[in-house]
Amino acid sequence: MTATVHPLRDKREPSLEPIISLTAPAMNSVNTVILDRMQSKVPLIPELAGHLIAGGGKRMRPMLTLASAALLDYPGARHHKLAAAVEFIHTATLLHDDVVDGSDMRRGKRAANLIWGNPASVLVGDFLFSRAFELMVEDGSLKVLRILSHASAVIAEGEVDQLTAQRQVETSEEHYLAIINAKTAELFAAACRISPVVAEAGEEAEEALESYGRNLGIAFQLVDDAIDYSSDEATMGKDRGDDFRDGKVTLPVILAHARGTAEDRSFWKAAMLGERTSDQDLVHATSLINSTGALADTMERARHYGRRAIDALAMFPTGRSKAALTEAVEFAVARAY
Amino acid sequence: MTATVHPLRDKREPSLEPIISLTAPAMNSVNTVILDRMQSKVPLIPELAGHLIAGGGKRMRPMLTLASAALLDYPGARHHKLAAAVEFIHTATLLHDDVVDGSDMRRGKRAANLIWGNPASVLVGDFLFSRAFELMVEDGSLKVLRILSHASAVIAEGEVDQLTAQRQVETSEEHYLAIINAKTAELFAAACRISPVVAEAGEEAEEALESYGRNLGIAFQLVDDAIDYSSDEATMGKDRGDDFRDGKVTLPVILAHARGTAEDRSFWKAAMLGERTSDQDLVHATSLINSTGALADTMERARHYGRRAIDALAMFPTGRSKAALTEAVEFAVARAY
Repeated sequence: MTATVHPLRDKREPSLEPIISLTAPAMNSVNTVILDRMQSKVPLIPELAGHLIAGGGKRMRPMLTLASAALLDYPGARHHKLAAAVEFIHTATLLHDDVVDGSDMRRGKRAANLIWGNPASVLVGDFLFSRAFELMVEDGSLKVLRILSHASAVIAEGEVDQLTAQRQVETSEEHYLAIINAKTAELFAAACRISPVVAEAGEEAEEALESYGRNLGIAFQLVDDAIDYSSDEATMGKDRGDDFRDGKVTLPVILAHARGTAEDRSFWKAAMLGERTSDQDLVHATSLINSTGALADTMERARHYGRRAIDALAMFPTGRSKAALTEAVEFAVARAY
Repeated sequence: MTATVHPLRDKREPSLEPIISLTAPAMNSVNTVILDRMQSKVPLIPELAGHLIAGGGKRMRPMLTLASAALLDYPGARHHKLAAAVEFIHTATLLHDDVVDGSDMRRGKRAANLIWGNPASVLVGDFLFSRAFELMVEDGSLKVLRILSHASAVIAEGEVDQLTAQRQVETSEEHYLAIINAKTAELFAAACRISPVVAEAGEEAEEALESYGRNLGIAFQLVDDAIDYSSDEATMGKDRGDDFRDGKVTLPVILAHARGTAEDRSFWKAAMLGERTSDQDLVHATSLINSTGALADTMERARHYGRRAIDALAMFPTGRSKAALTEAVEFAVARAY
């Protein structure tokens, strides 16, 4: 399995380039839908939405919808509108998240709530969410509507669950995995599952691609969590130490706390309550996360889910699409190095 | 027409009692759906949602769905789930509105955002909104999904539009009507339209009931606006003068400003910017709104839309349901007296 995750056949680092070029032509069409359907006669809506949507982001979730369709040789175009709906749901979630977290930055730019205020972010999020459903209704598949309305409810549930667990350093690994399964992996899973639905590829293909997306989503989130404490400079427009300073209880913290001495545990408790936010505190936190093996084991967990994502593709024929989806996982779990 | 709006055949005041008793048995079933579907394994969700949903409110919108179905002698039960979906969309909107407005009170109780914070209100709103779509998907009518996803987008657009027009005393009457058409009347219209859809009553009945709901919604909002400046003690858990102190530009203000002297206009401008919030300022505002005829004419506009709502029912046979829907309009426009 390790050979699959870290291919030795060429020396280059895993990259998103294959999945990006696989989906580039269809993504143009998705981008057209996105730009067209975020318009409104109320100018603030495209202004605010455009800041976030046009302003970057890897379009990871719609890209997965497109790559899943490519894997199935789906010849139609129905998934373009649905991929746009997925991106709208994601964008709505980001707008609301930034209000919930009081974020300063998003995708390397000032967060929309800082520029236009929380009220506008809440309401434009609601608008994009409604637009996502309008796009799905236009497509007309009740099965897709079921998948994405359920995913939206699960995401909101996961976000409320995370809010409840906020700053609680005793959160169990199981509970944390349930939270990121809901708030992150559910939409990855749904984004992948809707393509076999429109391609009428059958239940087995739906479950396989849902499993691919879900496991990739968990791996993706765990690596994000690890990057916050890694010694490398992080990419992703996210500063190292942000989670720590915000008192976000992530897997590295959960493991370091559980494995730590009584003194370590007091430190983590205080840190998560926002009482340890200096650079020196971050150095100490990073050192504990390394010495307890919490960082290495968070990455090990991420690779575990990454391997499961790749194995979920077993039923599909070898080829450019499968290679691109596989390398996307390898890229996700290689990011922290 | 006036005779229709103010029936002389009996001396009692118009009331909601006929529509309440018409819909009471079906409303029990709607309430069961509501209580069942606001549950979640995350305890904060039913706790917060229950505060607002169980804690009062007239269930005006689902009641309109039920009364419309009764008018059509629809024998089925599909509209129960859909009426619950309408109430969930409305509740989600209220939760987000209270965050947007920084409200202290809602339905005579402390607003949820004050008890559980803005983040929880935003996220539980998102959850209820998603649940509304899950309920509609379970019903399976793409036509209903189209109506309610479109309504949700229009509501959000109207809210953003109102946010943009906030505190701007020069807002035109046309612009203000467009705002309340979107943010209030659209959901009333949708609530009424979905019953003829499930009853397969035909396009003409759909348009008639949509028109009834839309005109009632506008009348309802205009009377709400008037009550804030009326000399009566208002009911509805809303304190008189709230809109004034919050700098909300409503039709009475728009008319009083437009008809006022230069001095009056300065007063209104300052008031809407939050620089005139004393009891004495409210007395002065109320006096201007009366002396310019702004209050009487806001009520006249409300009665105009009320008459249009009643006329929209012309095609339906006389009977208990039509009488109840008619009296609901009469009640709405009689509230300020």
